[in-house]
Amino acid sequence: MTTKPEHSAGLDERARTVARAVDGDALWQDLETLAGFGPRSDGGVCRLALDDNDIAAREWLAAQATALGAEPGVDAAGNVFLCRPGSDPEAAPVLIGSHLDSQPTGGRYDGSYGVLAGVAVLRALANTGVQTRHPVAVVSWTNEEGVRFAPGTSGAACFAGARTLEATRELSDSDGVTFGEAVDACLERMDRAGAQRWLLGTPAAAFVEPHIEQGPILERGGHSTGVVSGVQGSRWFRFRVQGLAAHAGTTPRAARRDALEGACTLIAELRATCHDSSDQLRFTVGRLDVTPGAINTVPEAVVFTVDLRHPETPTLDAIEQDMRSLAHAEWAGCPVVMETISSLDPVAFDGAVTSALAQAGESLGLASPEMISGAFHDAVHLAGHCPTGMLFIPCKDGVSHHPDESIEPRDALAGARLLAATAVHLALGQR
Amino acid sequence: MTTKPEHSAGLDERARTVARAVDGDALWQDLETLAGFGPRSDGGVCRLALDDNDIAAREWLAAQATALGAEPGVDAAGNVFLCRPGSDPEAAPVLIGSHLDSQPTGGRYDGSYGVLAGVAVLRALANTGVQTRHPVAVVSWTNEEGVRFAPGTSGAACFAGARTLEATRELSDSDGVTFGEAVDACLERMDRAGAQRWLLGTPAAAFVEPHIEQGPILERGGHSTGVVSGVQGSRWFRFRVQGLAAHAGTTPRAARRDALEGACTLIAELRATCHDSSDQLRFTVGRLDVTPGAINTVPEAVVFTVDLRHPETPTLDAIEQDMRSLAHAEWAGCPVVMETISSLDPVAFDGAVTSALAQAGESLGLASPEMISGAFHDAVHLAGHCPTGMLFIPCKDGVSHHPDESIEPRDALAGARLLAATAVHLALGQR
Repeated sequence: MTTKPEHSAGLDERARTVARAVDGDALWQDLETLAGFGPRSDGGVCRLALDDNDIAAREWLAAQATALGAEPGVDAAGNVFLCRPGSDPEAAPVLIGSHLDSQPTGGRYDGSYGVLAGVAVLRALANTGVQTRHPVAVVSWTNEEGVRFAPGTSGAACFAGARTLEATRELSDSDGVTFGEAVDACLERMDRAGAQRWLLGTPAAAFVEPHIEQGPILERGGHSTGVVSGVQGSRWFRFRVQGLAAHAGTTPRAARRDALEGACTLIAELRATCHDSSDQLRFTVGRLDVTPGAINTVPEAVVFTVDLRHPETPTLDAIEQDMRSLAHAEWAGCPVVMETISSLDPVAFDGAVTSALAQAGESLGLASPEMISGAFHDAVHLAGHCPTGMLFIPCKDGVSHHPDESIEPRDALAGARLLAATAVHLALGQR
Repeated sequence: MTTKPEHSAGLDERARTVARAVDGDALWQDLETLAGFGPRSDGGVCRLALDDNDIAAREWLAAQATALGAEPGVDAAGNVFLCRPGSDPEAAPVLIGSHLDSQPTGGRYDGSYGVLAGVAVLRALANTGVQTRHPVAVVSWTNEEGVRFAPGTSGAACFAGARTLEATRELSDSDGVTFGEAVDACLERMDRAGAQRWLLGTPAAAFVEPHIEQGPILERGGHSTGVVSGVQGSRWFRFRVQGLAAHAGTTPRAARRDALEGACTLIAELRATCHDSSDQLRFTVGRLDVTPGAINTVPEAVVFTVDLRHPETPTLDAIEQDMRSLAHAEWAGCPVVMETISSLDPVAFDGAVTSALAQAGESLGLASPEMISGAFHDAVHLAGHCPTGMLFIPCKDGVSHHPDESIEPRDALAGARLLAATAVHLALGQR
């Protein structure tokens, strides 16, 4: 049966011991090693879910198990586990990790850092000999990025029961290879690597995911770690502004219905609606397509997208309502159609896990601001399965999904120490 | 030698006689017939310069010569002439016409109307037996549209000496066929049709080009004809707004340099700079490309074009200066680069020809507002060769370069009558 860990008021000395024992050099070496699976000539990584590089990286991960005092495992969605047993055979594991797949023009740290920080914790546990009641298991979730098989976060969603394995197996890549075919090939190789089979939905005592921030907040604040209390909600909209094509040289202004003039004015109003003094609302127009797109033709139609995010549903509702009102008007004489592309509610992480992270940070002398994740993560699905939390480390200039993705060794070490203290604290939890 | 026609104070009765004799039904039938060369299933026309349809249309035109009391001719650029001799063998011809080629998804009237209005004038001359001192010659210029061979207005430019035949012959279409090869095939067929060879640069007493307006001014004013006093100048610019790509979910507003936010704000300022109460300035942003163009990425760069037109160079200079000042600023934190793509000076048509058109309109009871052409025409080149003018007739909703291009029979007739009176007036000119 699942048993939830209990959280003592102070951080156990064993948690601090393991945290202090985290080997930053070994972690950095692991990051270098992993960047060799699917390396790009520009220094980045291309390791798409379940491709040869991704499977080779999983085999490498499984091969570390013995030295870490752990056992390799895999489930039907291809999620990989390195599980260090606890003292209580009835206690559910504390999961720590992230994902190994990358964007096609990806960096070395998005996902990988979280998995290898987990490896660093197991290494520190092995080196200190600290025994936890709950097992501690590093996990690597399959297909977080969703580049080869869309949508992403496949492994976490199947494990947590947010999606069915059957539907996920039918996803197809651009060559017509299904997720099912790709994961079967992966499982065969993981079987050969000695991985035990885990069941999807295996109970967990907690899940803690370390990740690069993918934003500038920690770097600007000079912090090495941050505690993530939740993931903001996001809504994607598509606006179509319908004008009238006309000759740019012959049509007076008064006779025009210029779709781009309408779109620019509407975007300015939408942007003004989203101007909050606390700078919590995220408003982005990332795509804008002009038809017909000729220098000497007044634009006939403009289609643009809005990416809107905020941690609170009532705020998202209110802003969406304002946007719908604006879309009911005509802009530069052009009517507008507004459609919803997607809508994801905000997620609040478990208070006990967030508290444990904050307490561990304090105890280790790591000032770790509480923050909201702007991006979606595997942890969002796990939050529906077990007590879940996340920690962030800074990345240079907030850049991610790019070969220029960069982190500092000191931050990598700080994040792994915060993870170690938190995971050990949770895994020590008494029955 | 060239002799310029002289313009009497009043319109000669013979000019009015020929104008009254213009046969609107025959003109309308000719427009129908010509639409059969390169017809599109949507009612439009695809007749690219020197393709089989265009050459067949030229053969049809040459075949009309005898019935019109004229002789077919062609020059080395493929320009076709139907010349009705004058009484003075020394007098240079008055040229009237336009072009027969169309856009690929073109309409029936852009260009064709001008050539067939010329045919209608020759028919009225033949039917009335009026004898002019100068020859009157219908002309069809080669490759006005510039779709198959770019740039356009090839025939007029070669005839008027604005470009060399040698350079024009080297233009190549998308299949690698050169203008030279295409025009040689055309000349062979025109020779078989009995066309006499004209020299490029043959002196002309005047050129008058009738054309559809390609704008809404005449239709909105309820006018059947307009006198074109010139062609406005045009300047094309490219602006590049350089921002910084960032994650839409994780990057606070204060940390963004959003290239699209900058572009929209800059465009609004550029547009405001061009807001003239007389509505003479034409300002169009027709292209706008966003990089990378992903829903959840803050735009890194935006490139957009500006098409700016006005009849007066000082105004264009002043506006361009204002635009350059705006481009020196940063917009949403993004620097801007502004480049000139092209610059065409305004053209003023010959005062005597414009006066003759205005006088003829008055004499025929056709209220013909004086107007500036927003589009480029063959007449712009001819203006450097001989006294030149243009007249416009309205087209429905200002639409051109589209199968929906549409004109009214009464306007077609009015335009041909105005052309007839003007051409006869000019061609009567005493030595």
